[in-house]
Amino acid sequence: MADILHRIGVKDASPEKVYDALTTVDGLAGWWTEDTRDNGGVLEFRFLPGGFDMEVVETRPAEHVSWRVVDGPPEWVGTTIDWDLRQDGDYTIVLFSHRGWEKEVEFMNHCSTKWGSYLLSLKSLVETGTGAPAPNDVQISDWH
Amino acid sequence: MADILHRIGVKDASPEKVYDALTTVDGLAGWWTEDTRDNGGVLEFRFLPGGFDMEVVETRPAEHVSWRVVDGPPEWVGTTIDWDLRQDGDYTIVLFSHRGWEKEVEFMNHCSTKWGSYLLSLKSLVETGTGAPAPNDVQISDWH
Repeated sequence: MADILHRIGVKDASPEKVYDALTTVDGLAGWWTEDTRDNGGVLEFRFLPGGFDMEVVETRPAEHVSWRVVDGPPEWVGTTIDWDLRQDGDYTIVLFSHRGWEKEVEFMNHCSTKWGSYLLSLKSLVETGTGAPAPNDVQISDWH
Repeated sequence: MADILHRIGVKDASPEKVYDALTTVDGLAGWWTEDTRDNGGVLEFRFLPGGFDMEVVETRPAEHVSWRVVDGPPEWVGTTIDWDLRQDGDYTIVLFSHRGWEKEVEFMNHCSTKWGSYLLSLKSLVETGTGAPAPNDVQISDWH
């Protein structure tokens, strides 16, 4: 089992505001992918090459969001994605983990860098009102 | 033991060119920190809050670079950083790993996101001639 970890701090933003960006379709579409839908508790995120369906497993307002991947690339299915939020001075600290990868494959390296880039998109969305969601996300390689 | 993994693709660049950015003081100063020195096989990287000393353990031109952290934050000392390069079509693929963290501490989350950001700085340096090394690096949180 292998994990991807990240941490950002969103300046001059409350945990409630970051939580909104993680739990509303408008918020999610503002930093991850414009093609985001809520299908009765399953969030459907679509990108040019495919997408991910996330079951929302747990939410605690302004504190915690937990997803389980129910459809998508085989390496992702069954993995879990957790978001922990807390206020720290002027910042809302976001601790991110994408756990339960069965094997440490090259695709995991890619997803780690890509998640880091999307977290900076989330930070930008909440701080400035503008993120960089797909299809206008930062291209990091031949795998997009 | 826990690991940080990343992957980028540097477009229209040979592995040799990326290798240069990982093995010369000018190259390293162009994407990681402007305050970089080579002290007889130990690379000294300095940032505002401190720095890292890396023993260059292994280099294979255009293929592989391996460092061991010999001084720096206690969580880093003894960990290893590996860079693997290969050509894939128009891209040089960079596989990065920072392995051997004793515990999964919050600082590791921070370093993972920060490494991702520095790898995009490396990509930019090689592709455009301009990176974003410290002290002009991307600020991701209260921890810089």
